[in-house]
Amino acid sequence: MDVRTGLPVVGMVGGGQLARMTHQAAISLGQSLRVLSESPDDSAALVAADVRIGAHTDLAALREFAKGCDAVTFDHEHVPGDHIRALQVEGVKVFPGADALVYAQDKGRMRARLSELGAPVPRWRRVATAADISDFAAETGWPVVAKATRGGYDGRGVWMLRSGAEAADLVATGTELIVEERVELRRELAAQVARSPFGQVAAYPVVETVQRDGICVEVIAPAPDLPEALALHAQQLAIDLATDLGVVGLLAVELFETGTGLMVNELAMRPHNSGHWTIEGARTSQFEQHLRAVLDYPMGETTLTAPVAVMANVLGGPPGGISLDERLHHLYADDPGARVHLYGKQVRPGRKIGHVTVVGDDLTSVRARAARAARRLQEGS
Amino acid sequence: MDVRTGLPVVGMVGGGQLARMTHQAAISLGQSLRVLSESPDDSAALVAADVRIGAHTDLAALREFAKGCDAVTFDHEHVPGDHIRALQVEGVKVFPGADALVYAQDKGRMRARLSELGAPVPRWRRVATAADISDFAAETGWPVVAKATRGGYDGRGVWMLRSGAEAADLVATGTELIVEERVELRRELAAQVARSPFGQVAAYPVVETVQRDGICVEVIAPAPDLPEALALHAQQLAIDLATDLGVVGLLAVELFETGTGLMVNELAMRPHNSGHWTIEGARTSQFEQHLRAVLDYPMGETTLTAPVAVMANVLGGPPGGISLDERLHHLYADDPGARVHLYGKQVRPGRKIGHVTVVGDDLTSVRARAARAARRLQEGS
Repeated sequence: MDVRTGLPVVGMVGGGQLARMTHQAAISLGQSLRVLSESPDDSAALVAADVRIGAHTDLAALREFAKGCDAVTFDHEHVPGDHIRALQVEGVKVFPGADALVYAQDKGRMRARLSELGAPVPRWRRVATAADISDFAAETGWPVVAKATRGGYDGRGVWMLRSGAEAADLVATGTELIVEERVELRRELAAQVARSPFGQVAAYPVVETVQRDGICVEVIAPAPDLPEALALHAQQLAIDLATDLGVVGLLAVELFETGTGLMVNELAMRPHNSGHWTIEGARTSQFEQHLRAVLDYPMGETTLTAPVAVMANVLGGPPGGISLDERLHHLYADDPGARVHLYGKQVRPGRKIGHVTVVGDDLTSVRARAARAARRLQEGS
Repeated sequence: MDVRTGLPVVGMVGGGQLARMTHQAAISLGQSLRVLSESPDDSAALVAADVRIGAHTDLAALREFAKGCDAVTFDHEHVPGDHIRALQVEGVKVFPGADALVYAQDKGRMRARLSELGAPVPRWRRVATAADISDFAAETGWPVVAKATRGGYDGRGVWMLRSGAEAADLVATGTELIVEERVELRRELAAQVARSPFGQVAAYPVVETVQRDGICVEVIAPAPDLPEALALHAQQLAIDLATDLGVVGLLAVELFETGTGLMVNELAMRPHNSGHWTIEGARTSQFEQHLRAVLDYPMGETTLTAPVAVMANVLGGPPGGISLDERLHHLYADDPGARVHLYGKQVRPGRKIGHVTVVGDDLTSVRARAARAARRLQEGS
């Protein structure tokens, strides 16, 4: 508890844009997010009052950070499970806990557990050799999708393998791998829920996520033309997984929509790019919801504030051209209703430096406006 | 400019809740508000990364604070005009400037200028003696309203005088005063606009403000049953005043609605309590709009996000009872759609410690929910 305010203190490990936007939400709750950041120039460290500099792999730093926190949570999945367990043993409320988080940290553990629970997943296998991969491909056909069990994100740590030779090259890097069948998908969806220690679960409307080169570029809420039964199935799947895995906080379930139904692709146990639209598009943003969940407050309403919300990510564009500030001027002149979120990051090509959300009544125009706004910030034209 | 982000730096003098919520808005723009705060425990100082401790009456502190700011603006009206003028002469972009701000600082100057501009104001007079007041009352009838020309807020600095004896008592305190006729009003309204240095003006829907003991307790957007012609008149009045007075940033015009039309009560040149509803209720919040205005960005859309938005202030309740944190738990359980904003302030009876906004379709239920939520936080029951 913060003695100055009588209100709780949440600590978030990691100083990226998720912590930045969580701090923004914390302010409304009378709180000030404590952030463990690698550098004082990290996205969240630029805006939060209570920033500690330290590595998320340093148990001593984590211990010091956790002192006085009512709950500790994460901006990313990279804190070692043993460190989290050590904190939990010492009485720190860490959410999600190590036993839940492992399923977002280790794709092999995740796939095994989901198979056990009967959740729909692609055919998959742990593999150690190129022969293992070729054996698997003999059953499913080439290409197959290889994934590093740990550390991948935004398309990194995922490879499409077309032959035994490609498999051998990848195995030679020494990366711990699983392989999965390549799923013929119609599109990708995401189902996001929040769960509190008390066990209350709140589900957001199911969204469509659009990826380019493995990076999410657009999220449409709600997913257009999604049959009610499939939407309910996706939400129920996310609710069941949150409960079965003992998640506290947010859970994003990334899904493939196929000709025969849904398959779980990935899990994330934190605020997630697929939920940025909730800042303007839902009654309670995912960031506030995550705080409410880890503090065991009752969950907030997850209903849409308008018929359609579309979020477009802003990636760093090619070097040169007008400054980001000038681009923002042009964008605001062009579309006074676009909602911009910049993360205070140095612009590097392909890096997520912000996002834009547009809400409205008409899917086509809302989508076009969001894409146009993101392009203006990205390319300056 | 912040060299780490390539984006502008706005400095706000004063560390109250307005600066706190402006910082929250600045985060979306890729910025981090610089705050000049009297104490590290001030509302905004608890949440902002770039806090300087100093007095708003100290020119040296203001000069140091302004270094590297792209624009300097205010959380309150109390910075001496001469200090602002000194900064402006030295090239600092201060918005609103001293020549505009004086009309929000000095009620005598404001009344004189508005009379000159032909804006509708109550009959008024500068007074130095009890006899002056009695002479005025002989024309308008008792009671009359006396106002300190400087420094009043939330009902402080305003007195209802019923007799020459009461007038004499007040004059004896040495306060510089104006008197005004007591206006028979139907209700109070507020018209808020933002104006940029370029001269662009954006007007918000006109709202009804409900006061109790001189403190705003409730704001209803849009003002219910306000005839279109009167709404347009209020907006045009605010636009004209912003232009005529050379305001840059937000201008809130507090109005009386009377049987014969509108009268200007007060002016504020900063984010204002009558605009807190815009965080959820308008496409662009007043806090972001103020930043956009002082940075000369194009203004954001001011349209409503729902048919009705009601904001209820949370005042500190009587001592004792359950903690604020427990009250928040109960409120969230009771109304998962209420949007709470707590300012991180110590609870003292009557002090504004936060506000609640509810948006929806039905005025009666939205109003009831907002009032109920504020009461839960205030009284804990």
